[in-house]
Amino acid sequence: MSPPDLWPTPLTRPAFAAFGDVIEARDGESYAINEGTTERFNDLASVDTGDRGGRPLISIFRGKPRVFPFHITMMERHPLASQAFVPLHRQPYLVVVAATTSSPGVDDLHAFLASGGQGVNYRRGIWHHPLLCVDRESDFLVIDRGGQGENLEETWFDQGCFLAAEPA
Amino acid sequence: MSPPDLWPTPLTRPAFAAFGDVIEARDGESYAINEGTTERFNDLASVDTGDRGGRPLISIFRGKPRVFPFHITMMERHPLASQAFVPLHRQPYLVVVAATTSSPGVDDLHAFLASGGQGVNYRRGIWHHPLLCVDRESDFLVIDRGGQGENLEETWFDQGCFLAAEPA
Repeated sequence: MSPPDLWPTPLTRPAFAAFGDVIEARDGESYAINEGTTERFNDLASVDTGDRGGRPLISIFRGKPRVFPFHITMMERHPLASQAFVPLHRQPYLVVVAATTSSPGVDDLHAFLASGGQGVNYRRGIWHHPLLCVDRESDFLVIDRGGQGENLEETWFDQGCFLAAEPA
Repeated sequence: MSPPDLWPTPLTRPAFAAFGDVIEARDGESYAINEGTTERFNDLASVDTGDRGGRPLISIFRGKPRVFPFHITMMERHPLASQAFVPLHRQPYLVVVAATTSSPGVDDLHAFLASGGQGVNYRRGIWHHPLLCVDRESDFLVIDRGGQGENLEETWFDQGCFLAAEPA
């Protein structure tokens, strides 16, 4: 097992703004509906699934926990649509994205530790790692795209890097 | 407090088929992705938000618990779009729908007890009661519609009925 050379930072909206949306209920950002019995935190992510006849899909992803330090060997992106993940078991998970539109190297990677109360919505075309559960198998609601067209690109690293489960 | 005169039955896909989709991860209905580290339960609900320039919204609803037997005095429907609710705290909740397209009476109502692992997607135009949490305040991810157009109708009962929290 190699020592980690990539550490996550806590997921926040400002830190993630270049990559997409953080889907979370924040105090003071809701309004009352249903005669005051419900608070609505409205419009938390930009769903972008309509290009080339696409339609929004609602699915559940059940992810297995990873072994850490986790060896990152590849990244993927969806050129036609956004993709949102929202945890259904309130388990923390890791998010790895790249701040480049060309093929990323390991130096382009940014890692975030999401709490079990935070979802993410990757903007269309943002390089990201597939789902990274930490402690246990858990489910996520996923809103992405159905329809014709090739919506997956992958890139593989020569050596990759090793991701820590926790911030340094 | 009046005694209940409407009892829920457990939420199942066949029982709910006339009203919309049950969003749940069922054994044997997934396929492996991400090199076998994730199971995808694909396309669990029909998202219908595009009419008249509408777009899908992702929001969080935080619902307060109700007092039971709960006095049902009104129902609502969304004539332009579907609306999905998926529990984020794995708490059970109640779903009340009506099997009519005209203005419902209490004899048209059907009640379901959803587990904390089950979401629902109301089909466009289906009469339903606003969010009914049972034991405690809890959050739901909601996928509904943003955009122009009047997407809410309400109907009020003269006397209504009283909903039990549990099946008879």
